[in-house]
Amino acid sequence: MNVSHRLSGLTGGGSDGWDVFYKARAMKAAGTPVVELTIGEHDIRTSPAILDEMHRAARAGHTGYAAVPGIPDLRATVAARVQARTGVPTGPQNVVITPGGQSALFAAHMAALDPGERALYLDPYYATYPGTIRGAGGVAVSVPTQSEADFQPTRAALDAALGDAPARSLLINTPNNPTGVIYGAETLGIIADFTCANDMWLISDEVYDTQVWDGAHLSPRALPGMAERTLVVGSMSKSHAMTGSRVGWLVGPEDIIAHLINLSTHTTYGVPGFLQDAALWALRQGDAFEAEIAAPFRRRRDQTLVQINAQDIVRALPSGGAMYLMLDVRATGLSGEAFADALLDAHHIATMPGESFGASAAGHIRLALTVDDAALRSAVETLLQFAAHLASKAA
Amino acid sequence: MNVSHRLSGLTGGGSDGWDVFYKARAMKAAGTPVVELTIGEHDIRTSPAILDEMHRAARAGHTGYAAVPGIPDLRATVAARVQARTGVPTGPQNVVITPGGQSALFAAHMAALDPGERALYLDPYYATYPGTIRGAGGVAVSVPTQSEADFQPTRAALDAALGDAPARSLLINTPNNPTGVIYGAETLGIIADFTCANDMWLISDEVYDTQVWDGAHLSPRALPGMAERTLVVGSMSKSHAMTGSRVGWLVGPEDIIAHLINLSTHTTYGVPGFLQDAALWALRQGDAFEAEIAAPFRRRRDQTLVQINAQDIVRALPSGGAMYLMLDVRATGLSGEAFADALLDAHHIATMPGESFGASAAGHIRLALTVDDAALRSAVETLLQFAAHLASKAA
Repeated sequence: MNVSHRLSGLTGGGSDGWDVFYKARAMKAAGTPVVELTIGEHDIRTSPAILDEMHRAARAGHTGYAAVPGIPDLRATVAARVQARTGVPTGPQNVVITPGGQSALFAAHMAALDPGERALYLDPYYATYPGTIRGAGGVAVSVPTQSEADFQPTRAALDAALGDAPARSLLINTPNNPTGVIYGAETLGIIADFTCANDMWLISDEVYDTQVWDGAHLSPRALPGMAERTLVVGSMSKSHAMTGSRVGWLVGPEDIIAHLINLSTHTTYGVPGFLQDAALWALRQGDAFEAEIAAPFRRRRDQTLVQINAQDIVRALPSGGAMYLMLDVRATGLSGEAFADALLDAHHIATMPGESFGASAAGHIRLALTVDDAALRSAVETLLQFAAHLASKAA
Repeated sequence: MNVSHRLSGLTGGGSDGWDVFYKARAMKAAGTPVVELTIGEHDIRTSPAILDEMHRAARAGHTGYAAVPGIPDLRATVAARVQARTGVPTGPQNVVITPGGQSALFAAHMAALDPGERALYLDPYYATYPGTIRGAGGVAVSVPTQSEADFQPTRAALDAALGDAPARSLLINTPNNPTGVIYGAETLGIIADFTCANDMWLISDEVYDTQVWDGAHLSPRALPGMAERTLVVGSMSKSHAMTGSRVGWLVGPEDIIAHLINLSTHTTYGVPGFLQDAALWALRQGDAFEAEIAAPFRRRRDQTLVQINAQDIVRALPSGGAMYLMLDVRATGLSGEAFADALLDAHHIATMPGESFGASAAGHIRLALTVDDAALRSAVETLLQFAAHLASKAA
């Protein structure tokens, strides 16, 4: 029996650049200590206080089917938080709770696209983006960005990717995984103008919105005319170290949210009530709780930039947020994949090749700042010496 | 901005027969006591022992991203349970864990169907079935069954629904919601022959497989040649009173499961690890635990049939399993919807009109046996007197 073409073609053929990651995991499984700077997951666990609240809610009986749109208090709290941070009037009717940010990303594309319609996304990209578009039946169209322009998208690149054929949506991510860059007013203005001019949905993945190192997070939904065409993906995963709890949401126009609730009835039937209670409790702890979760990544970014600025072989992309640093290692003469593979072999330090995230990040590696400060400092020191050694051989 | 046609057309227009349900909920919210025999949810909560195990796993640190296919022990335990109950060789590679049975239903249709392909389902049906097919881009084609034939599908009806156009899949549910009937060897043989003859997927929703009152549960996956074309939907919801935990699975051929894992990466990114640990613990409690969850529904079916067999206005469909009884109320002269509405108004007893579940169940009502035995006995007594009164007026 054959699977649908949709599933057989969900991800591209050949190596997807994750060979280094799997090799590192295999080395660890075989007993070799590996410093893993690969996956975007905190080095802390979910707070016991959140887990105790989850248990309290479950033991109190919140174990039956929860309301599919999300429990009213959580929808209202997410809405109030979005409104406070963006200034856009937002009510519970603008929010649907989903089992994690990935589910929200998929649902957004299900709402924006009919089968065969084109959907744009920016390269480099989070690993699931093109497959998510294809899963929703869309044709995934990448928009390249340039390391030299700090991976900020340009109007020319957007127009070139669109070409003469219509597209229904553009997917962006700020703060950005994998690059760590944020989109400021200028870039978001370009994106807003482009989606308005072409009557497109903007799907804005803002799951790192509490990890912004300079200034405040800007949401494109707050720009003039954008609230009606923007679907914002949010999540408890990064902001509250709740990656495994799978609680996220979509924020958007009320009529679209109503359709998305109907979709949830048919794709997931909602999110466990006791998990929503735990998320609600966590959100009510306020900004200080979230700042504490984010602080290590800023501190590690700062210490790593000091190390990188002391040499001139490896260039760091300007990191404005999220838990990553993207490093340009082209001066070593190696691809990102070859560099990451050699670094793993020689020093048991695992990083993600830029190629894992699209052609635009070739010759780069991504560091996840997800080991303790001292281990990170030592690994970066080794990495830079390794790069210098390679560069001197290449020269 | 317009939503996709897929979402705008997900569910049919007009009343979907749930008006009585919403009216009952509104009455309750306004303070009127209502006996609710509507929703398929246990009158007990999830066992505190399961919840304590969930908390233990979470506090022990299982709060990060869990393996997207499901944790190995849970996949293996589900596989062993399926093999023990069906005799079909089943390993962890045949299992993907999903966030609930509804998610498994959706994923199965995503695997079976490309956009525009036809998918069959049996009427009467669980409320989400046609929308799930449409959400996966398919064309939902209903196959009528007859009350007089105990809602068992016939080959003639299957052939007529198929007509001259191909279809990719047939969705069945045994034990059946809403009818409570089970499909025996004869019906499953017809279904197997039909899907083989037309090279179709069989999607078999068996979430009530621990609630079988006469004999053992039969899974069509166990029939000759069927394992390669059958995707079985399972869940912790009904068997372990874990409706709100959203833990389910699909069982199927290894190559298809591999594709479904890839789909999960793009639609949900897996199921919380501590929920999987709790499900694993619950499954390891064995048959006695599940029998205890199921027992009240058998007991209530038996007591209700005694009441119904003492009169001849209302006919009960032969209930072989699940937590429902389907009653034929056509002798009252009313539609199922009118009867349920009048019963709610007159006696504050809420039932589901058969019409909620498709045209084949017109003139019927579904009772969910989800209130305590005494309350159920009293409600059924009132219901039967009400029906007799209506029938005498109609005569």
